[in-house]
Amino acid sequence: MYYIGVDLGGTTIKAGLLNSDYEIIKKVVIPTGAERSSEEVLRDMAMLCREIMQEHNLTEEDVHSIGIGSPGIASPIEGIIHYASNLNFNEVNVRNEIQKYINLPVYVENDANCAALAEAICGAAKGEKDVVVMTLGTGVGGGIIINGKVYSGAFCGGGEIGHHVIEMNGRPCGCGRKGCLEQYASATALINDAKAAAKANAGSSLNELVEDGNLDNMTAKIVFDAAQSGDEVATAVLDQYFRYVAHGVANIVYMLQPSTVVLGGGMSAQKENLTGPVTQYAAEEMCPGLELRNPVKAAILGNDAGIIGAALVGTTL
Amino acid sequence: MYYIGVDLGGTTIKAGLLNSDYEIIKKVVIPTGAERSSEEVLRDMAMLCREIMQEHNLTEEDVHSIGIGSPGIASPIEGIIHYASNLNFNEVNVRNEIQKYINLPVYVENDANCAALAEAICGAAKGEKDVVVMTLGTGVGGGIIINGKVYSGAFCGGGEIGHHVIEMNGRPCGCGRKGCLEQYASATALINDAKAAAKANAGSSLNELVEDGNLDNMTAKIVFDAAQSGDEVATAVLDQYFRYVAHGVANIVYMLQPSTVVLGGGMSAQKENLTGPVTQYAAEEMCPGLELRNPVKAAILGNDAGIIGAALVGTTL
Repeated sequence: MYYIGVDLGGTTIKAGLLNSDYEIIKKVVIPTGAERSSEEVLRDMAMLCREIMQEHNLTEEDVHSIGIGSPGIASPIEGIIHYASNLNFNEVNVRNEIQKYINLPVYVENDANCAALAEAICGAAKGEKDVVVMTLGTGVGGGIIINGKVYSGAFCGGGEIGHHVIEMNGRPCGCGRKGCLEQYASATALINDAKAAAKANAGSSLNELVEDGNLDNMTAKIVFDAAQSGDEVATAVLDQYFRYVAHGVANIVYMLQPSTVVLGGGMSAQKENLTGPVTQYAAEEMCPGLELRNPVKAAILGNDAGIIGAALVGTTL
Repeated sequence: MYYIGVDLGGTTIKAGLLNSDYEIIKKVVIPTGAERSSEEVLRDMAMLCREIMQEHNLTEEDVHSIGIGSPGIASPIEGIIHYASNLNFNEVNVRNEIQKYINLPVYVENDANCAALAEAICGAAKGEKDVVVMTLGTGVGGGIIINGKVYSGAFCGGGEIGHHVIEMNGRPCGCGRKGCLEQYASATALINDAKAAAKANAGSSLNELVEDGNLDNMTAKIVFDAAQSGDEVATAVLDQYFRYVAHGVANIVYMLQPSTVVLGGGMSAQKENLTGPVTQYAAEEMCPGLELRNPVKAAILGNDAGIIGAALVGTTL
């Protein structure tokens, strides 16, 4: 059996064909043309899926389903995208549109939830049934997997881990709240904290490691590199960052006690350099009877997680 | 069909018989004798259940199951209490013990989870499938209902909503963390905040309303009463308290988006005086696409929730 997953973004549509081992055996990327109507975008998407099937001599009987991951809010079982950031999608019945061109079951799901599902089915938490994935990138996203399925609440909008407040009246967040986890645990937050620390400490190597000596070129990698070279300012910034992330992890475990918390997004490239200290600090936040049973893990599927998870949504409903 | 629910506490064992409408038609309370072995306590419990059945001329065929709610951590399906605060229960197979005396299915579940289940099945959120109950009492407890069942995580220890941090480096908590929701949103926290405010404001009527003019006799009800009489200090304390609770509610909705958040525990006696302002403030914390869909509700089953939920655990597994 084969599975088709589509990662629908504001810039590109990425479609992938998975074999029965859930491996991507073909991946195609086309521009979204997000200014167009949803009908046009979805027709392109359907044609892309048909091309992939033809190329592999697959009929509709060979393919389990088409799953589509999209930003925003989607109802998987109904096949409806309620709204999608950066796209002209409002209450679009994606299933009906795609099925004009291909006679296959069609499911939709939020893209971060798709990525989380992939890590739980065949990624960092392979085979685990209760998993939370916290995505540390520009913002902090998340996906909650319960009993092997995406859990997104009563109205498909939950899983917004990045917008739970860990510091009342703290840093203002784009969502309107103050003190959201995202403002402390995102890669953006780490970069901003490192810039501020470098500015306040002229002697820190952070000031030289940035391109053109311009602090606006700060990256998360530079902070890790500087810390590993012994820069005390970078070490302190990172240590605080690890504690922020650990607060989020511990909050998740107190509430949901997944078997594993997986850290995804750009930060996950740091692997054990990130998960090691976060595991230690999160464990220190737990209490007797509610220990951190398993270490925090880094996501392993990278950018493919969205396609893989989308492709597998239909197997979990 | 009948259902037996038992609320096992450190002081008393409360057993109730429910009819097919999930109404308690008989309730019996005996002392726990918590210093005794688990075998002795469970034998008493089994005898109590047998007495109730005999009194109503019920055979084992008339009763669906016995459900037992207990403090601490329990595995419902296995029938095991792993540990229970204030009781000599450590890795006790409750099912086997009870079944020495009664041939009925036996289930166990954490007591706060039982109470939450009751509110979701036949209480404030009757019939709703995705519900979170936040219990505001001495501490802040909680229970998460997902798809009509208790969700307590991969190791039956989750749902500890009161111990998620809303203020990093905030008020120290008994769990070892700092800034837990419990330290701001419990009845205890409200009482402490009111005492401090009364002390700092000699003119506040809070100082007269407490018994014997002793601030150690402060109660949550006094704070509400003083605020309703126009006391500005009490009003300010309560307003801040509502915002604390609303932070907890909003954090839950961002993460889990239940259809309804129910407030239980002693504070729920204040009904709309509590849920009205908390709903308003929680709604203000939400963002477009993730609105608060339903008002926050007060629990309605009171102390019976534990028995009712315990009795119904077996119907949900």
